[in-house]
Amino acid sequence: MAAEIVNPRSDSSTDHEGPAGAAEPFDPAFALHRGGKMAVQATVPIRDKDDLSLAYTPGVAKVCSAIAERPELVHDYTWKSNVVAVVTDGTAVLGLGDIGPEASLPVMEGKAILFKQFGGVDAVPIALATTDADEIVETVVRLAPSFGGVNLEDISAPRCFEIERKLQERLDIPVFHDDQHGTAVVTLAALRNAAKLTGRTLGELRAVISGAGAAGVAIAKFLLEAGLGDVAVADRKGVVSRDRDDLTPVKRELAELTNKAGLSGSLESALAGADVFIGVSGGTVPEPAVASMAPNSFVFAMANPNPEVHPDVAHKYAAVVATGRSDYPNQINNVLAFPGIFAGALQVRASRITEGMKIAAADALADVVGDELSADYVIPSPFDERVAPAVTAAVAAAARAEGVARG
Amino acid sequence: MAAEIVNPRSDSSTDHEGPAGAAEPFDPAFALHRGGKMAVQATVPIRDKDDLSLAYTPGVAKVCSAIAERPELVHDYTWKSNVVAVVTDGTAVLGLGDIGPEASLPVMEGKAILFKQFGGVDAVPIALATTDADEIVETVVRLAPSFGGVNLEDISAPRCFEIERKLQERLDIPVFHDDQHGTAVVTLAALRNAAKLTGRTLGELRAVISGAGAAGVAIAKFLLEAGLGDVAVADRKGVVSRDRDDLTPVKRELAELTNKAGLSGSLESALAGADVFIGVSGGTVPEPAVASMAPNSFVFAMANPNPEVHPDVAHKYAAVVATGRSDYPNQINNVLAFPGIFAGALQVRASRITEGMKIAAADALADVVGDELSADYVIPSPFDERVAPAVTAAVAAAARAEGVARG
Repeated sequence: MAAEIVNPRSDSSTDHEGPAGAAEPFDPAFALHRGGKMAVQATVPIRDKDDLSLAYTPGVAKVCSAIAERPELVHDYTWKSNVVAVVTDGTAVLGLGDIGPEASLPVMEGKAILFKQFGGVDAVPIALATTDADEIVETVVRLAPSFGGVNLEDISAPRCFEIERKLQERLDIPVFHDDQHGTAVVTLAALRNAAKLTGRTLGELRAVISGAGAAGVAIAKFLLEAGLGDVAVADRKGVVSRDRDDLTPVKRELAELTNKAGLSGSLESALAGADVFIGVSGGTVPEPAVASMAPNSFVFAMANPNPEVHPDVAHKYAAVVATGRSDYPNQINNVLAFPGIFAGALQVRASRITEGMKIAAADALADVVGDELSADYVIPSPFDERVAPAVTAAVAAAARAEGVARG
Repeated sequence: MAAEIVNPRSDSSTDHEGPAGAAEPFDPAFALHRGGKMAVQATVPIRDKDDLSLAYTPGVAKVCSAIAERPELVHDYTWKSNVVAVVTDGTAVLGLGDIGPEASLPVMEGKAILFKQFGGVDAVPIALATTDADEIVETVVRLAPSFGGVNLEDISAPRCFEIERKLQERLDIPVFHDDQHGTAVVTLAALRNAAKLTGRTLGELRAVISGAGAAGVAIAKFLLEAGLGDVAVADRKGVVSRDRDDLTPVKRELAELTNKAGLSGSLESALAGADVFIGVSGGTVPEPAVASMAPNSFVFAMANPNPEVHPDVAHKYAAVVATGRSDYPNQINNVLAFPGIFAGALQVRASRITEGMKIAAADALADVVGDELSADYVIPSPFDERVAPAVTAAVAAAARAEGVARG
């Protein structure tokens, strides 16, 4: 801790070192992050007085006046039409937990450049110095004139549910908590293809989700919305069911919506005969529980970096195995969804992102796989260039069909 | 108003039309503003899984952890080190007044790209949906973890003074209201060179400022700080003086600080025998009042687009004439100051922008003119490539000298 802090801008010889300078071994992640990962650029020239008089005073005044008179023109003449705020309070960052707003910034910058790279969407990290749900809501409402959409990121449950709901009620631009809905969309896409591969419909499948946080709750609701036969969700105390008296309001709602079979008890017991395991908990599932699942089961063990079921174990029993890791087949990666979802929503100036738009995104994502569908290929690669355009077009079309498009 | 709204992204044939489509004549300002004037770009590659695993999960986690452990590292490993929030509430935009946050965005985007073009500083428009001073302060405090500095812009007086002061008290990053201090810095630079040209010291000069808003108040205080002999400020009711009983708290303070000569009455009467006129009001000054000024006077008529004294009139009486317009010599343009001021402050991680840093900026700006000094050249052109580096270096050095540098 006493090591000197090296400023890379004043000493280029430290470029490839860790945060404590020469005392730390070479680390390519630190090297890559020096100075941050993003920048702003002008998209119009400022070469001379004439350029300046158009892009700034006096020329800009007539554009401002036009927007003041007809507010909808803000989408035509500013970057609001294409810019998303990536908002966090730093309370649930990756697997690191509550590390605060400053320490969350590298993730938010990463998210921002993924928005750009994969969806052509501009995005700005907004890491807030408050964890109070109402203060977060008020702050984002005040920021909203400057942005075309809000991507909530790495905000811990259950505050994330309340924050998203209140923002959606108060704003007329898309508000989307990616940890919930991005994960749910990609999971549904993979599940749809897994079902197709094994000749089943979603209605025939019973799923068990490990984890009742942001992702688990959203996946459960979304899979039911999409027509899954039954979904049970387990938290650390076991399956969320109506007979439990220790449930938060969010889990009480979940108990009403899920678990038609009326299961109770442990996650492991719920897996007996289940068709689908979805892990978003970070825990581990013992091999016998995986073995107890129905034939042709699907194991989506998405915890990072350690899947709830190791893929080698899962493959002994399951027909389709997916993880959150890039070094195994079938990576459930949110980057498959959020860039195209926002790009599509912004393209048609959607006022919100509906269930139908998310289902359209999942379907489009599943369809990219097409005839190449196999057990090791139920979901496309993040680097498949067909993905974002397909999701964008499907989301835009769904927004129009659902009447939330304004442009 | 009933004309169809044309979306440029769906119909390229409308590229060069005004906001109401074919019903409006061709207008290059609207054409230039289509889709906004700025974008975000990644500064690191995301070509494949390896890139993704460094810039995002899992590689990013160790960078986040390092910042969580040692918060100062946020400046090394995120764009916080180089990004400024351009914050407005849209209440005092150009000469347009209170047009609201959305309509202010073209100006804020313009400001942002000037930051980039001239200072290499990234900047993000933040137009807020509140005009309440305390709410603005709270909002900016919550945003602050994401930014290395705050440029307040086009917030009406007197709220702008309170907002700036409270933010400076609560934040450890530079907070700078450009309408106040940027204008004051460039004015001082021009005044210093005008004094040099006419063989006088600042202490010999008596100035009269027309306008007691953000710019007028800041210029008055700053010129006194820099050693001007006397400064009087006039609002619509005349010279701000201790014997007036209609003064706001800000103007009461001004009455204490300024007007050593004890002037009262009209702006015109105060100009009799004055050495310097500084117009930041948008009003007009009658020719006889200009004629009544001392020999070798300076007329800085900075209202845009209509200077308080037309340059042709001013030249009949004054030794040096400056305006805010780009089509006359000696343009007092804030873009000469703010990019370099923030670039210098960010370069050394200054905790604030001190009076000494602003004076250093003005001196550096004046010095760029050097031996070419003439009545038509007391201030450099915004496109003089020596300006921003000179201001940046001077501000960084002053920050170090004043003990507010942290890097």
